[in-house]
Amino acid sequence: MKDIIEKVRSAHPLIHCITNYVTVNDCANILLACGGSPIMADAAEEAEEITAICDGLLLNIGTLNERTVQSMLLAGRKAKELGHPVILDPVGAGASRLRTDTARKLLAEIKPEAVRCNISELKMLMCTGSVSRGVDAAEIDRIRKENLPEAMEMLRRFSAEYRCVTAVSGEIDVIADPGGKVCAVTGGHPMMVDITGSGCMLTALTAAYMASAPDRIFEAVSAAACVMKAAGTLAAAESLKNGEGNASFRTRLIDAVYHSGKDNMKGLIRYEMY
Amino acid sequence: MKDIIEKVRSAHPLIHCITNYVTVNDCANILLACGGSPIMADAAEEAEEITAICDGLLLNIGTLNERTVQSMLLAGRKAKELGHPVILDPVGAGASRLRTDTARKLLAEIKPEAVRCNISELKMLMCTGSVSRGVDAAEIDRIRKENLPEAMEMLRRFSAEYRCVTAVSGEIDVIADPGGKVCAVTGGHPMMVDITGSGCMLTALTAAYMASAPDRIFEAVSAAACVMKAAGTLAAAESLKNGEGNASFRTRLIDAVYHSGKDNMKGLIRYEMY
Amino acid sequence: MKDIIEKVRSAHPLIHCITNYVTVNDCANILLACGGSPIMADAAEEAEEITAICDGLLLNIGTLNERTVQSMLLAGRKAKELGHPVILDPVGAGASRLRTDTARKLLAEIKPEAVRCNISELKMLMCTGSVSRGVDAAEIDRIRKENLPEAMEMLRRFSAEYRCVTAVSGEIDVIADPGGKVCAVTGGHPMMVDITGSGCMLTALTAAYMASAPDRIFEAVSAAACVMKAAGTLAAAESLKNGEGNASFRTRLIDAVYHSGKDNMKGLIRYEMY
Repeated sequence: MKDIIEKVRSAHPLIHCITNYVTVNDCANILLACGGSPIMADAAEEAEEITAICDGLLLNIGTLNERTVQSMLLAGRKAKELGHPVILDPVGAGASRLRTDTARKLLAEIKPEAVRCNISELKMLMCTGSVSRGVDAAEIDRIRKENLPEAMEMLRRFSAEYRCVTAVSGEIDVIADPGGKVCAVTGGHPMMVDITGSGCMLTALTAAYMASAPDRIFEAVSAAACVMKAAGTLAAAESLKNGEGNASFRTRLIDAVYHSGKDNMKGLIRYEMY
Repeated sequence: MKDIIEKVRSAHPLIHCITNYVTVNDCANILLACGGSPIMADAAEEAEEITAICDGLLLNIGTLNERTVQSMLLAGRKAKELGHPVILDPVGAGASRLRTDTARKLLAEIKPEAVRCNISELKMLMCTGSVSRGVDAAEIDRIRKENLPEAMEMLRRFSAEYRCVTAVSGEIDVIADPGGKVCAVTGGHPMMVDITGSGCMLTALTAAYMASAPDRIFEAVSAAACVMKAAGTLAAAESLKNGEGNASFRTRLIDAVYHSGKDNMKGLIRYEMY
Repeated sequence: MKDIIEKVRSAHPLIHCITNYVTVNDCANILLACGGSPIMADAAEEAEEITAICDGLLLNIGTLNERTVQSMLLAGRKAKELGHPVILDPVGAGASRLRTDTARKLLAEIKPEAVRCNISELKMLMCTGSVSRGVDAAEIDRIRKENLPEAMEMLRRFSAEYRCVTAVSGEIDVIADPGGKVCAVTGGHPMMVDITGSGCMLTALTAAYMASAPDRIFEAVSAAACVMKAAGTLAAAESLKNGEGNASFRTRLIDAVYHSGKDNMKGLIRYEMY
């Protein structure tokens, strides 16, 4: 994975983000932190053109509306036509029909190379979910050691059905590919759920890695998860030492990604392949 | 109030926010900081569904448009139907007819349990205002010791007329309920007006407290004002010590709320009941 | 320039910003940091009214859509009618027809007093550009010592043609006025391109300075560039000392502007007049 983390810094992939206005600034800054470059553009009039000058496309349905759904479809089709990797973050799928339907539509029509979400959202996309806690994973759904085999199986099925790499974040991050490979990433810190945008930022990071290694999507998605967990560990250690709260943690998280690929993450990147 | 501050941390109320895109990230992070959970959704297509899975509703008219006015009305009606507490922040009421009219419409049609704003905005809603400095209180309006009795009277009248708890922020925060009770909160720091979003964040904090104690709205609104003032005092002390500016102050303010309910605010929560 | 930097702190100019949702929070906070006051409002229904109560207008096309283009035109015309200085930031001009056309339309119809952008965007507006790297300057375009004379000549031509002050940011910032005067500002730090919003924030800062000295636009625009470069130098020094990344740098940058006009920038404001 090391080479992917380094490649982003030389390739400077330009990522077209159609994303929510809650965490958009954090997504832009984490893209810059890892070596990528962001452009946010959600008008249907320019969606295709913007996608065409970029290296990858991020679709995040966090604050959706009619106008942006249309832009996502236009940008998505253009990206596929040009062979740019596309990642979908179905934020809040299950919380409303608009979100669930849009996520399913994007999945079916665009066929993104990767989907990153939490376990509740994934269940909703697979029609097996029952509880929605808005944009967060429901307590009963969260991936822990105990339910890891079950979660891995679910991701494998989803990846096989949609022919995409699937990444689900939780105490343990799980990444699956259509061929059945699975990567489980540990580390991170509980403070990561105390800020808004942990998930959105990981999706943005992943988009940059995918655009830098479009022929190795599974590795790229796994590398992004590893870097984010390591950044979380680093940021929390620093914040706890200084008695800080979640706002400082957010700043330190992006800061840690800014130094990723250097020595700061030695020993903190922990994953197992299955 | 201590029990309300603690209850938010165990209840984790989910707050549906239809709010401006300027301070939306800060609102989400302060909600997480106090123990709540945010979901931002402003599409009319999903407004009612999102509200239905939440515990409270926040309507902030900071960057209004036709589309979001509609969503606020839909979400507002659904929240009332379900008995969820609603808070209105009439940002910039008086600065344009769109804002003044929308604020009045929401007030009349939704009948929010609480309204939080600055004194100039309140005057505009009561048709007694004359000067608009955009989203900030006009200098001549600001609540100080000298005009506190007058301000208290005004809030009492507003609360009685609209059957809601009214909170006005300033050097002194004043909270009134329809029955005539008033709480005056002191503390805070002048740096609070040097950042964008002090008011919006307080409204978000208040929404979380209200959703955790829906049968004690006056206490919940007062508790939020107390916590915010105390957080301002703490954040400013730290920032001034380090020669920092308003951006660091913003981070420290949210950080201080993250630790609220623990010992960090001892002696800093100051209010008087009238 | 010192008097302009100080004047903003006493005049507290209110700036109407129609700007992108990516960096809007940073723009608001830097306006407050320098002594100004922001109001963001992008609904056509209120665009003219909001502009009317303000002292200056900022038009930033970062995340444009049909709705906001209309609002920009309405606000722009009203500002000109009232004699308020207008600044245009043609973010991403060249990246899509929507952006290029909108920028040209605003330039032709509104005739802003100032335009601030990067060199690639300027070339696109002048129909001499060829490469678009989205919202960043293309590598080959960047202003350095070597191509400074050429850049100065280009800015002079643009300023003369559009009768406006033109500011282009890069390793060296260049500001030109219609009469042929040029100011070249050095300093700053490479980390400034590692955050989103360096450019947008400078445009916001410039708007505040212009509104405080509407009869000295060239000096105001130059002063803002000087303050931003000095703030970048200060912020980077602090961040590098502490091993921080781009997120901390962003906070420190705004913090540095918060103290501008005091002694913190002594010796860091460096410009030459041509």
